[in-house]
Amino acid sequence: MRHENKKRQSGCPVAFGLDTFGDRWSLLIIRDVMLKGKKTYSEFMNAKEAIASNILIDRLKHLETEGILEKSRDPENRRSFIYALTKKGRDLTPIILEIITWSGLHDQRPFAMRGLVEEIGKDREEFEALLRSE
Amino acid sequence: MRHENKKRQSGCPVAFGLDTFGDRWSLLIIRDVMLKGKKTYSEFMNAKEAIASNILIDRLKHLETEGILEKSRDPENRRSFIYALTKKGRDLTPIILEIITWSGLHDQRPFAMRGLVEEIGKDREEFEALLRSE
Repeated sequence: MRHENKKRQSGCPVAFGLDTFGDRWSLLIIRDVMLKGKKTYSEFMNAKEAIASNILIDRLKHLETEGILEKSRDPENRRSFIYALTKKGRDLTPIILEIITWSGLHDQRPFAMRGLVEEIGKDREEFEALLRSE
Repeated sequence: MRHENKKRQSGCPVAFGLDTFGDRWSLLIIRDVMLKGKKTYSEFMNAKEAIASNILIDRLKHLETEGILEKSRDPENRRSFIYALTKKGRDLTPIILEIITWSGLHDQRPFAMRGLVEEIGKDREEFEALLRSE
């Protein structure tokens, strides 16, 4: 996020992806839109992981600048904004699914949530198509 | 990386993955081992993205604690250490491949490196097997 120009110069596709979306909070916001259907600032603030408001504002701005999220007026409340994934953002779906699959293999904690892992196990293609369509 | 216990309590598989490997530097180190065959501290220090030594030490320790990397004495130089991916670390291969694929779609910079994107395009399964075996 910092020293944008310096960071961007390696040309490596892994580094490019990470510079665009690859910090924990950005990916948790993307998760919230993609998997939980969240749209508004206050919905993002309610994440279980307790994001700080200044970090949320920074990451929403960053993801909008990068073309991952698009911001528009809420048609139901013209004083508010809603966020949605762009095509570029929806193209992150396979990455999110692979992270979930990896955690399904390696998260042995008793309170680990298994629902998404099972959804992917049942029919990954269908689940991916569903996420991309929303 | 910070406030480990607090962060870990959501049970969400996306958050679990991100807490384990999901910061930019950790993933760039994983890339260096997986794609560039790097093994030693000094090889990691030479990354184009110019990692600071204190961050490198912190992330190597973190990835070792998380069971992603294993550290052993270098058989060719018993005073040095080498790092290798564990099974848990090699299981990150599909995530790295999806990040590369995404960047192949969206990185329009003239100096973007296309070699890996083309490798994946040719035969993804074979390329994944190759990375996992190394």
